[in-house]
Amino acid sequence: MNMKSPLTLLFTICTFLLYSSAELDGSLTYIWPLPSKSSSGNDTLSVDPELSLVVGGKGGDSSIIKDGFDRYKKIIFKHSGRSYPVNKRSVFDIGILKIAVLSDNEELQLGADESYLLLVEKRNGQSIIGEAYIEANTVYGALRGLETFSQLCAFDYETKTVKIYKAPWYIVDKPRFAYRGLLLDTSRHYLPINVIKQIIESMSYAKLNVLHWHIIDEQSFPLEVPSYPNLWKGSYTKWERYTVEDAYDIVNFAKMRGINVMAEVDIPGHAESWGAGYPDLWPSPSCREPLDVAKNFTFDVISGILTDLRKIFPFGLFHLGGDEVNTVTLNGSISDRLLELYIACEAMTHEMTGVPNDQLKSNTASPGHSLLIVVFYYMKKDLIKDGHIMVSMPANGNCQSSRLLDHNMTTKDAYQYFVLRAQEIAISKGWTPVNWEETFNTFASNLNPRTIVHNWLGGGVCAKAVAKGFRCIFSNQGFWYLDHLDVPWDGVYKAEPLEGINDTSMQELVIGGEVCMWAETADTSRMWSKREAISSGNITLTALPRLHYFRCLLNRRGVQAAPVTNDYARQPPTGPASCYEQ
Amino acid sequence: MNMKSPLTLLFTICTFLLYSSAELDGSLTYIWPLPSKSSSGNDTLSVDPELSLVVGGKGGDSSIIKDGFDRYKKIIFKHSGRSYPVNKRSVFDIGILKIAVLSDNEELQLGADESYLLLVEKRNGQSIIGEAYIEANTVYGALRGLETFSQLCAFDYETKTVKIYKAPWYIVDKPRFAYRGLLLDTSRHYLPINVIKQIIESMSYAKLNVLHWHIIDEQSFPLEVPSYPNLWKGSYTKWERYTVEDAYDIVNFAKMRGINVMAEVDIPGHAESWGAGYPDLWPSPSCREPLDVAKNFTFDVISGILTDLRKIFPFGLFHLGGDEVNTVTLNGSISDRLLELYIACEAMTHEMTGVPNDQLKSNTASPGHSLLIVVFYYMKKDLIKDGHIMVSMPANGNCQSSRLLDHNMTTKDAYQYFVLRAQEIAISKGWTPVNWEETFNTFASNLNPRTIVHNWLGGGVCAKAVAKGFRCIFSNQGFWYLDHLDVPWDGVYKAEPLEGINDTSMQELVIGGEVCMWAETADTSRMWSKREAISSGNITLTALPRLHYFRCLLNRRGVQAAPVTNDYARQPPTGPASCYEQ
Repeated sequence: MNMKSPLTLLFTICTFLLYSSAELDGSLTYIWPLPSKSSSGNDTLSVDPELSLVVGGKGGDSSIIKDGFDRYKKIIFKHSGRSYPVNKRSVFDIGILKIAVLSDNEELQLGADESYLLLVEKRNGQSIIGEAYIEANTVYGALRGLETFSQLCAFDYETKTVKIYKAPWYIVDKPRFAYRGLLLDTSRHYLPINVIKQIIESMSYAKLNVLHWHIIDEQSFPLEVPSYPNLWKGSYTKWERYTVEDAYDIVNFAKMRGINVMAEVDIPGHAESWGAGYPDLWPSPSCREPLDVAKNFTFDVISGILTDLRKIFPFGLFHLGGDEVNTVTLNGSISDRLLELYIACEAMTHEMTGVPNDQLKSNTASPGHSLLIVVFYYMKKDLIKDGHIMVSMPANGNCQSSRLLDHNMTTKDAYQYFVLRAQEIAISKGWTPVNWEETFNTFASNLNPRTIVHNWLGGGVCAKAVAKGFRCIFSNQGFWYLDHLDVPWDGVYKAEPLEGINDTSMQELVIGGEVCMWAETADTSRMWSKREAISSGNITLTALPRLHYFRCLLNRRGVQAAPVTNDYARQPPTGPASCYEQ
Repeated sequence: MNMKSPLTLLFTICTFLLYSSAELDGSLTYIWPLPSKSSSGNDTLSVDPELSLVVGGKGGDSSIIKDGFDRYKKIIFKHSGRSYPVNKRSVFDIGILKIAVLSDNEELQLGADESYLLLVEKRNGQSIIGEAYIEANTVYGALRGLETFSQLCAFDYETKTVKIYKAPWYIVDKPRFAYRGLLLDTSRHYLPINVIKQIIESMSYAKLNVLHWHIIDEQSFPLEVPSYPNLWKGSYTKWERYTVEDAYDIVNFAKMRGINVMAEVDIPGHAESWGAGYPDLWPSPSCREPLDVAKNFTFDVISGILTDLRKIFPFGLFHLGGDEVNTVTLNGSISDRLLELYIACEAMTHEMTGVPNDQLKSNTASPGHSLLIVVFYYMKKDLIKDGHIMVSMPANGNCQSSRLLDHNMTTKDAYQYFVLRAQEIAISKGWTPVNWEETFNTFASNLNPRTIVHNWLGGGVCAKAVAKGFRCIFSNQGFWYLDHLDVPWDGVYKAEPLEGINDTSMQELVIGGEVCMWAETADTSRMWSKREAISSGNITLTALPRLHYFRCLLNRRGVQAAPVTNDYARQPPTGPASCYEQ
């Protein structure tokens, strides 16, 4: 039979995947993310289920170490095996894990030392170190070492004990990038505290270190702000809210896992929900976005929010948003003619769907988005990439413009004025401002030089930003927007924050990267490992089996990570199989 | 604009859902599943974060009560509020929860008494009961009462305390059906212990009481069987296994939540994986299913497995499978001509996809299934319903048939012989056998009268089974197969186990129902509540808001339950909104 439809091809591939089962080596030991330096041997060591902790160094007594050890002990000894009487414990090769933390400074900030040394070897009367040993400069480095140690431990179903294969292990490790983030958006959908904690816990498995909490947006304002107690009236319901105490709880939970929390207040273009509590923040009842730039009250509220948040969020970076502000200025090569076509498409789609124009373009989850893509596709194919519109927000009328004329401002003036004034407020509270790339794209030369530019629209932005001396975070939506479900795993894996940046001093200005939107962390730990260690060779042979293995590890720990190689992300598996093959 | 494409309609609906936001009453109190009898008032009571437990009755001292109380206390007081000094505790209306358990019998079996009484009222010097009081005959009834109590408690973001609205509450409750199950399949995909525990925990939120553990199937054999230690060589990998201790752990974890675990060993047609460890169980190396009926060794292995499992699983019911055995006998009205067409379709689909014939029909997740549906659709539309083929397995050659001739058996004889002999083994171990409906459909008059018939193929089977005196479990795949993602929530909700059964004594033979395959428990609690309380009126007005509310409750507790009204189940939401509206 000779059918060549895409359907047949798909089936052929699926069938191949279903039946290409290979026997896996039981002593296989994969570590994710890949450590900086590691060597292994051929010993197999058994680990005592009553593994005990011995601490040393100025920072060893920290509750962060003690709690971390208890957490990982539960993970390592998850399976119930036989129980052994205490006097039989000498049968195990590893009975003690020693952790030495050289510094007692527990401040968690960008650039905190996360390096560690991990040694695991057979007990030896002569050896001073012996058994299992983690050494780190800070408690956070020790936590990273604990994660790696837990990944060396495997439950052996034959003997029903935990084994470490391929010992002795000598691992010296540190991250490639200081900033390794995951964005959560709690405005478009409220995420319960428990869910946020589960995600933070899973971030620690991938050695991510920044939770970028996009708390507030135009759809809802879930956070309590004591200075302006009506603001959280903008929450979806009375139950979809975070108290100040909840926020402290999140920050503390994250700190115990070595994870910073960077809060975002996305202004002025994503703040419609603020007006539910304080309608004066809207330019007028019918014009609700951006925030009213012409009133001092607007900046009083921002200052009040930032004062309250400063007490909760000790992380030195604060995200001020600044994306997708509706001005008449366009970014890049879009022509007037094309703009007209785009506006016509958008209007038509809006009329058909009722979805607001700004959501149509940016939000792939909105019902009108696909239709807009289809309509626009026939107009200008080359501006659509992987199902996303690769242009900045077109002008379709900023409803403030007539009011702004009274103040001798254009909408673009107002945008710049707003962002710079908000930056000043953030800096006055001791924060380093982070802004989405449109601020850089639109008025780079006026931005505060401390600004960290947060890329999202596409490639090449960090190269431009660091060339002008700004620091940069890489989140190219073509690869690292987790709500873009059509990006294959290798696209996510290969995306490179330093692409096109060759000068070492400029490379250092790229502080890291961040995956945005959804809680799938498995594909993001590329930012820990060295570029040369992972970018050479055929990654289907080198990285993919290790990624499968890490997916299964996440599943075992209760994280519902989906199959890696699905054509469409987070879909259920296409048929029965081992998690090590899907 | 006048577009009437399905796409436009879809968008219109989505848009309606997005913008039909209604302000929800903060004192709203929905209970899921609906209690048997309840009355409420207009008081609002505050609950002390240091709520203490006072127990009474012969069974009050049980660790099941103590642990249950501790679990629910964490759920109820999840949000961090203000802390109150001990001497200020009198400000709270509810400081004590009294639980009286009349019996100290903790045996958990089908029909265990799960009834309870729950009273919550303002403290009153005259009242003997006072505050919050649960009374139950068994610890399991008390657990159900604790669940209901936890659903009355709501965190009030204004005062940052837990409140009970609409007090006083008087609830007298008991389940409509004794058997309220959820099937998990750990053969097609291994489920880690942690994930199974999460699902068991979430089952308790919906007052489900049987985890039907479909442990083994043709794809993999993950369970350790000490009598035949090579059996779990049929696991996908060395890591995708359950030790005997793991199984005990699951059973105990479930018991602490009042949930029975019914194990299934699906024979003879779903057991190919057994031969990985003992190839003699296969009729021949090229004919691996059904299990070899002609060897005593086959029944020795079954007996060994059942002996080992009997020690682990105290529940009186044991599932012997018996579905989809390939014989030449067909069930129902399918004609010879239609059968020929079906076989031709199946052969063609098999050739195109490489998927085995038996998977094509039954497994909607198999890549060939949709194609088979399409092909078959043009042959005989009326046998396709909601995307599923509603006929029993057609004959396409049982590979044992020529061997069976040597024993003067037809494939149908062999099927019956196998099932009945396995039933005898199970009964000899003190178990009540449960079998999938094909055994009843094929040789009802020879089935052991203790057999519980487990419906799955479609409607009307329980009516036939109880008419012949058998007990029955309802799992009509048209509604209660959770892997059939195209069934809307109201279809799931309205499906009725007693449909077509009017005689009361026959109704009593329907012990309950079960949802199969995936861990979405939110829609299944219909089996607790009385039929008349939920089947009258417009359920979109009565049940849907309560179901939304329960979905949000599950989310708050960390269960990743998806939006209720999606066209396709468990898809992400179509746009930003409150979880109370999606």
